[in-house]
Amino acid sequence: MSVNVLRLGHRPSRDKRVSTHLFLAARAFGASGGIYTGDKDSSLEESIRNVVSEWGGSFSLEYSENWKKSIRSWGNKVVHLTMYGLPFREVIDEIRANSSNLLVVVGGAKVPGEVYSLADWNVGVSDQPHSEVSALGIFLYELYERELVNFNDGRLKVVPQSHGKLVEERCREDLSPAK
Amino acid sequence: MSVNVLRLGHRPSRDKRVSTHLFLAARAFGASGGIYTGDKDSSLEESIRNVVSEWGGSFSLEYSENWKKSIRSWGNKVVHLTMYGLPFREVIDEIRANSSNLLVVVGGAKVPGEVYSLADWNVGVSDQPHSEVSALGIFLYELYERELVNFNDGRLKVVPQSHGKLVEERCREDLSPAK
Repeated sequence: MSVNVLRLGHRPSRDKRVSTHLFLAARAFGASGGIYTGDKDSSLEESIRNVVSEWGGSFSLEYSENWKKSIRSWGNKVVHLTMYGLPFREVIDEIRANSSNLLVVVGGAKVPGEVYSLADWNVGVSDQPHSEVSALGIFLYELYERELVNFNDGRLKVVPQSHGKLVEERCREDLSPAK
Repeated sequence: MSVNVLRLGHRPSRDKRVSTHLFLAARAFGASGGIYTGDKDSSLEESIRNVVSEWGGSFSLEYSENWKKSIRSWGNKVVHLTMYGLPFREVIDEIRANSSNLLVVVGGAKVPGEVYSLADWNVGVSDQPHSEVSALGIFLYELYERELVNFNDGRLKVVPQSHGKLVEERCREDLSPAK
């Protein structure tokens, strides 16, 4: 099952860091791409591109001028993450079983009411206000049954340490394709 | 086991939203309080206070002028979330078993090297760059063995819906203490 994340209503001045975190979390926890609406923001796109280029994988980010069209033309299942939705663990098996290419919609400042009716599922990761970033992270983590992605094709690769930092840098020529 | 979250190096102009999301995720997934260093930010404090006042629980946020002192004087175990650390699921049972009042340190822009040596554990939630918000959310989610907090004492309470929003408002007098 592949996942794409649609971020609604991005405002560069206010949301740059949160949207960057959102798409990086999307990539780290297994989504294959992102779409954002609101105002086009080339520095957001560049941040994501730079991480993909250094750390691997093929996550891609696109801008859409029209959120409604992006949802309506998706052609597969759509889940909307909202604290007002059904507890995510009650529906996640159903979502996994019924979606081959899932669109995960994540709200911005004001989510139009129509999003709730266009989505196949409205799903809450807890019923408390927190963050679209933690909601998406935990949702993807459970959706992929807590299996983490192994990025093998990056120029940079962390070598986990109990204390300190160690990053392996590899020449492009040494890289084998991602397994 | 109780958990407090220490956010290092908060800069109001740049980090307001991410720090707000971080502490809301901390609250939603079971932490009992937060501490932040960097620049004091009364609007961050107010945002968190407002959520606690409306949605319940007793999460509290404090400012510290000195991160080193906050870590050194903690008097219990300290974990630092960093993508360079050990895979979190390899050490989370050990952390849970050995901490009664855990301090979870979360980096800001530049994490001083000393944080890595002061922490009892340096722990990565994936070895990829994403977000302190998703890292903290997933870490707490696993730390509390995927049990979600039930906030019973808020003025507001979501009534989960498959489509739409429903929030129950209660008079203060009707509220029973949190169970």
